[in-house]
Amino acid sequence: MKHTLLFVFLLIGFCSAAQSNDEVTIRKIYDEALANGQAYSNLEYLSTKIGGRLSGSPEAAKAVEWTKKVMEGYGFDSVWLQPVMVPHWVRGAKEVANIRNSAPKSKPLNVNVCALGGSVGTGPNGILASVVEVKTLDELAKLGESAIKGKIVFFNRPMDPKLIHTFMAYGGAGDQRRAGPSEAAKYGAIGVVVRSLASNVDDYPHTGSTSYKEGIAKIPAFAIATRHADWLSKALTDDKDLKLYLQSQCQMLEDVPSFNVVGQLKGTEFPKEIIDVGGHLDSWDLAQGAHDDGAGCVQSIEVLRILKSMGYKPKRTLRAVMFMNEENGLRGGTKYAELAKANNENHIAAIESDAGGFTPRGFSMGGKTKPMVRTFIQSWKPLLEPYGLSDFSRTGGGADIGPLEALGTVVIGFMPDSQRYFDYHHTPIDTFDKVSKRELELGAGAMTALVYLIDQYGLR
Amino acid sequence: MKHTLLFVFLLIGFCSAAQSNDEVTIRKIYDEALANGQAYSNLEYLSTKIGGRLSGSPEAAKAVEWTKKVMEGYGFDSVWLQPVMVPHWVRGAKEVANIRNSAPKSKPLNVNVCALGGSVGTGPNGILASVVEVKTLDELAKLGESAIKGKIVFFNRPMDPKLIHTFMAYGGAGDQRRAGPSEAAKYGAIGVVVRSLASNVDDYPHTGSTSYKEGIAKIPAFAIATRHADWLSKALTDDKDLKLYLQSQCQMLEDVPSFNVVGQLKGTEFPKEIIDVGGHLDSWDLAQGAHDDGAGCVQSIEVLRILKSMGYKPKRTLRAVMFMNEENGLRGGTKYAELAKANNENHIAAIESDAGGFTPRGFSMGGKTKPMVRTFIQSWKPLLEPYGLSDFSRTGGGADIGPLEALGTVVIGFMPDSQRYFDYHHTPIDTFDKVSKRELELGAGAMTALVYLIDQYGLR
Repeated sequence: MKHTLLFVFLLIGFCSAAQSNDEVTIRKIYDEALANGQAYSNLEYLSTKIGGRLSGSPEAAKAVEWTKKVMEGYGFDSVWLQPVMVPHWVRGAKEVANIRNSAPKSKPLNVNVCALGGSVGTGPNGILASVVEVKTLDELAKLGESAIKGKIVFFNRPMDPKLIHTFMAYGGAGDQRRAGPSEAAKYGAIGVVVRSLASNVDDYPHTGSTSYKEGIAKIPAFAIATRHADWLSKALTDDKDLKLYLQSQCQMLEDVPSFNVVGQLKGTEFPKEIIDVGGHLDSWDLAQGAHDDGAGCVQSIEVLRILKSMGYKPKRTLRAVMFMNEENGLRGGTKYAELAKANNENHIAAIESDAGGFTPRGFSMGGKTKPMVRTFIQSWKPLLEPYGLSDFSRTGGGADIGPLEALGTVVIGFMPDSQRYFDYHHTPIDTFDKVSKRELELGAGAMTALVYLIDQYGLR
Repeated sequence: MKHTLLFVFLLIGFCSAAQSNDEVTIRKIYDEALANGQAYSNLEYLSTKIGGRLSGSPEAAKAVEWTKKVMEGYGFDSVWLQPVMVPHWVRGAKEVANIRNSAPKSKPLNVNVCALGGSVGTGPNGILASVVEVKTLDELAKLGESAIKGKIVFFNRPMDPKLIHTFMAYGGAGDQRRAGPSEAAKYGAIGVVVRSLASNVDDYPHTGSTSYKEGIAKIPAFAIATRHADWLSKALTDDKDLKLYLQSQCQMLEDVPSFNVVGQLKGTEFPKEIIDVGGHLDSWDLAQGAHDDGAGCVQSIEVLRILKSMGYKPKRTLRAVMFMNEENGLRGGTKYAELAKANNENHIAAIESDAGGFTPRGFSMGGKTKPMVRTFIQSWKPLLEPYGLSDFSRTGGGADIGPLEALGTVVIGFMPDSQRYFDYHHTPIDTFDKVSKRELELGAGAMTALVYLIDQYGLR
């Protein structure tokens, strides 16, 4: 009994000392992130000097070279490129769309649209057709070929504003963009316009990938700005016979070579246990890709920079990974996991930041995370709550680290405040000026703190 | 034993039923706030059609009339004005400032400054003097009259970026603005320039009140944009003999009549128990006062509108209060409490929103809140956490409701995310476009949910 008690006291003593050391280290991490942070100036360069960097573009190539140089400049133990073939979709000339009233001599009303990523183009002559508005794929199926054939289908279900976490609302409306074009083509539609997946009403169309089903005709697919979707819907109420003109010049070219970029600090005790922290380097062509996902890239680099600048010697191997091609193919994430498997690497954890550079709220964990691991990570909440991290209950990792989860890696999503993300997501206004320096830096601090804790204690 | 158990079971049953009813009602509150909210369009009007509304200005008078009309339009049980005399400070012509190098024929460098609220002006000729830079009031005292007399004192201590909650950093740097001018005047300074209380580095000076001590000369006081404070500091390192030119035309006029605006839903069970929810209607003259504190005003009105639109019959009397003159006098808050006392009113709780229209994080409670009441409010956390409200640990109420706390009212501060507030606070860029519709609406939802719970259960 006495011995047991002694053990308990020793354990409590040990735990409090560890807690206190961790508190001190995490405070130092945040001091570095907030007082000497470099994430913001790095993001400024990536966003404003390089800009939109869709896979296969010259900007994507520049971003690869630049992030490699940045990590080398910080003196990480090693920095390398992982070759990966990526899709090469190009938008071509700016899209054109207008509503043409059936009344003779009425003036066409221009509306803001953009081609969905991966879409085929209409060609320079465009298409002109009647419009059928639907809210769901079910509604489309019920209308069937007789109502749809030869027409343009207009998917107009908004993201649900009542959902508190906007990613839930995004998920709930996303089928229209992803599956809508092929579903409409099944019934003979000649084009598709999808209400932008946005949490606000404004004039910017939101692009994003669509995917065509094998064996179904590929028809041109567009996103329309939310305010203009409202115009179109109203116009259709007033004039069922109106026609919509759509023009896009986009096309899918041959795959081209590109790279993931990896920076590493080698572990001193368990170098074979790898902890990844990453974001995706590619971004849509319409904007600077500041929140999506320049933020995640510069934060991931910042994690290693902060720890190195503190003179911290990691027990385990830490990697900052800039994944290529998250937006339209996930080739980078897939390749990274392939190589991890081929090289028999042990990736114990992977954290992804791909939800914007907003104020941190918590971390989510992949669906395959074992309950004990989940509980273990949640036990760090008291250390992280003083920094505003209070939500550790949600499920989710990140697109690029999904393939690692299949190999047994614990995947974790950095979860910032979600309220403004879908105002900017995949639009021309996802620009550097939309990012708050402090919010971005707090995110870098949060990610560094978590990497530190996983490095210290592993994930049993 | 049996009876006790039965009672316990009944209690548990009652509690779960109550919990479940509350869950349903709070969900409805948020549905209304997010799907049919009017806070955002009201804020647009107040910010862009009325604009900056410093106490005593024509815009403040317009804001009084307009909020009264809005609340009458919503059909609140009663809406009235509470007369209050307010200070009337006017800025006059735009301020001028430039750095004049001691080298002959060097060109003056213009810097962005604004007079601090309540400051005396320099008059049209301005002042020109050498500059002494200090970081603290202590440093000033140590330098003393020999170093200070006839000079301009430049207070240049930044807000501490390491503090996670920016209001802590604001509090830590605020002595320079509030007390700096009189402290410098003690030692014979002829003017004061204070580094803007800002969490970022940019070109906008942040105004805000200063207060002169009785019996000490009133000297002109300015805020300088943070970037320009850095320029001035650098210039002083290079050239100790440089001079700074400052000009302001501001003046304090006679007090003028104004009003608090109050809207009320009368309680059906305990009408004499009053729950206040409010913000301040006045704002600095430089901008639209969107976050500070248009947001708090429209949210407070929205609380009553939401409950009324749901057909909710409050047990207690609910009041939305637009306090006048928070920024430079607190006359409205003081008058409100005076009248409460004179009329023997029982204000059981007062909630203020005066920290911007950002994503809600929690509620703080006044320093005089009894531990049992604090615990009782914290017991609602499970109901509010699904809406992102997780921090109920901090101490604080609100400036306008401070005088009510002295009368025994439980005061509560609505606490949104603080990271961007001091980018905009008291500057020309505190404008409507800086407010996110969803963030504002979530705040209105949070305040309504809390008012609902207090109305249901009182505050024992």
